[in-house]
Amino acid sequence: MNDNDPTTTRSRELPPLSRFLAESTWAARRGDRDIMDFMLASPQEMPLPGVTAALKYWSDPLTKDWFGYKGSEEPARELSARTLHERTGVPFKPDDIAMTNGAFGALALAFRLIGQPGAEVIVNTPAWSFYEPLLLAAGLTPVKAPVDATTLDIDVAGVLAAVGAATRAVIINSPNNPTGRIYTTATLRRLANAIGEAARCNGRPIYIVSDEVFARLTFDGARPSSPAEVYANTLVVYSWGKQLMAPGQRIGYLALHPEMPDLEALRDALFAAQLAGGFNVPSALMQHALPDLDPLTIDLEHLQRKRDRLVSTLGSIGYDVRSPEGAVYLLPRAPIADDMTFAGLLADRDLFVLPGSLFDYPGHFRLSLTASDDMIERSLPHFEAALRETGADQAAIAS
Amino acid sequence: MNDNDPTTTRSRELPPLSRFLAESTWAARRGDRDIMDFMLASPQEMPLPGVTAALKYWSDPLTKDWFGYKGSEEPARELSARTLHERTGVPFKPDDIAMTNGAFGALALAFRLIGQPGAEVIVNTPAWSFYEPLLLAAGLTPVKAPVDATTLDIDVAGVLAAVGAATRAVIINSPNNPTGRIYTTATLRRLANAIGEAARCNGRPIYIVSDEVFARLTFDGARPSSPAEVYANTLVVYSWGKQLMAPGQRIGYLALHPEMPDLEALRDALFAAQLAGGFNVPSALMQHALPDLDPLTIDLEHLQRKRDRLVSTLGSIGYDVRSPEGAVYLLPRAPIADDMTFAGLLADRDLFVLPGSLFDYPGHFRLSLTASDDMIERSLPHFEAALRETGADQAAIAS
Repeated sequence: MNDNDPTTTRSRELPPLSRFLAESTWAARRGDRDIMDFMLASPQEMPLPGVTAALKYWSDPLTKDWFGYKGSEEPARELSARTLHERTGVPFKPDDIAMTNGAFGALALAFRLIGQPGAEVIVNTPAWSFYEPLLLAAGLTPVKAPVDATTLDIDVAGVLAAVGAATRAVIINSPNNPTGRIYTTATLRRLANAIGEAARCNGRPIYIVSDEVFARLTFDGARPSSPAEVYANTLVVYSWGKQLMAPGQRIGYLALHPEMPDLEALRDALFAAQLAGGFNVPSALMQHALPDLDPLTIDLEHLQRKRDRLVSTLGSIGYDVRSPEGAVYLLPRAPIADDMTFAGLLADRDLFVLPGSLFDYPGHFRLSLTASDDMIERSLPHFEAALRETGADQAAIAS
Repeated sequence: MNDNDPTTTRSRELPPLSRFLAESTWAARRGDRDIMDFMLASPQEMPLPGVTAALKYWSDPLTKDWFGYKGSEEPARELSARTLHERTGVPFKPDDIAMTNGAFGALALAFRLIGQPGAEVIVNTPAWSFYEPLLLAAGLTPVKAPVDATTLDIDVAGVLAAVGAATRAVIINSPNNPTGRIYTTATLRRLANAIGEAARCNGRPIYIVSDEVFARLTFDGARPSSPAEVYANTLVVYSWGKQLMAPGQRIGYLALHPEMPDLEALRDALFAAQLAGGFNVPSALMQHALPDLDPLTIDLEHLQRKRDRLVSTLGSIGYDVRSPEGAVYLLPRAPIADDMTFAGLLADRDLFVLPGSLFDYPGHFRLSLTASDDMIERSLPHFEAALRETGADQAAIAS
């Protein structure tokens, strides 16, 4: 550490994704109706009317402290415990739930809670780009374990190989961003058995931090399993940001498994950690409104139609793309190995995608299905032309 | 560090204030209309109608990304820079302002930005109870410098004596919680000169983190100076929570002084630090509504009448209490040395105050002026009876 370094910001640099976004022409064009924006899971359609209605309704104060200091309010905790119980079959308790500033807040809280400086946390890659900066900010070291290259399923042997004496947790994200995979109960059980055994050898727990923000965003009626169903040392992260497609009105939670051996100590530490982390608690209004917000979800049938349209058309054009089971992304193979260059080719056509190199998956690119129908239709000829531009369509024909 | 410690929560314990609140009978009685609640600066009257009106009005989306991902939005930054410029005369720039999850968020961001693990930050005591856990969470060590016992003014020589090679910042809070003092420009200039000189000796900056959440809550029309007026290495913390008496609808900011030598490096680190801290950004709705919220303030004339009623009546009863210049608290001397016991005596009468021992000011207790007129009137006979109970009134007469 250089004490004379005036900035001390080196470890606080923007992660590669943020830097890419800031430097891309997308930054200036964002919101322009002429572009085709597949970059992030940002709303490209007007908000759900129910969100506005709920915000207005619950803005009318019923008590003096309506907008007063809020912790994790009892009704919001009860709703969270009940819906999580219904979804997983695990009887989560309201007292073991912290309402947070969305999933970022829940993850920051989880890492603060279970982390010790120097401890390691295993991340299955490709992965959401912000696990790494959140872990680093908590003083933890991310250790990457690639998923199976063919199935995109968790590579249990690979995870186990990454476990060491310093391993404190494994992050599981199902439905997965960016792969769209939903892990089966059998896979989760194999993982749970493996890391449970490793934890016994280590003589200390290895937690699963289960990021379930896409739990309700699945295709073909799929119902994802939660690691909580097979592993007691699980902390569940949820956020309504994706379900409502309103990530700027942040509300989420961190839930501690009711059979977790260290439940009481972790529960007792929740609120202090939320305060010390910068009052990591959702707004009073979002907590009040939660009963009206929770039943709302973006139109899944529409999302599925967008998935199907893109998967079938990109496939017929010549792209190698699999159909995701959940979450809101496609992850086609780039027609040339250099996905940064290919993303640049598309950007020149006002078509914005995320190169896979930014999340440990080079040679691929990610499309967000939150793009509008109009953007999708306008994009198809450009995807075809860009493929021709690379010459990869000829190679495909020749092979 | 005991690697087998299952909780790792020792450094994340509730600060003494939170523990006191949780263990006090107040926890169960909070919100009960029969109690006299002087405990926290929590709303004891219905919210300002303008807050509700603004939330409703701005809940109507005008764009597709109305509730989409928000950083520090340009209009909110511009308003913050403009109002801070107007108040201090220092031309703060929108780009140098991060919109945060209230003052907790702004402080957490400031400490993350300027801190290096092991560095020290000087806190003038008595002080707000949460500087310490926020500093500890950021890996920083709080160093206490008591204010002048007679004037409650900053003890510049004491601050200077507390400065060492590891000193990274001094926290200034004016108007002060809990003392109610507003530091003069002359005092701030003396402090600035002293720590500026110390920083030159150290060969690295010492920042002032200026917590100005009470800047607009003053009595007799007082206009507090900001350290930013006399010291370039100042980071200003503001929150609308107190001004609007709506601390559950969190919005605030951290502003970097435009003449700060390391401005660019710190500015570039703001957003990454906000994300890595758990998406420490106010809700979309609060940022949209800010132009309508900023002109609102709780009724200062009413607050002043409450101050005057309590100061004069407590004084005539026999309490030693000075009249605060700003913020929303009284800080009388407890009639017996043991302020915890005295707070217990009052709590037995359903009259809840905060003992000074919780914020390094034993022998005193804090009253929040956010209590309602009705609570205040009902409390007066109890304050008198509790004083008689201690026998301190007889001692006062005898002396």
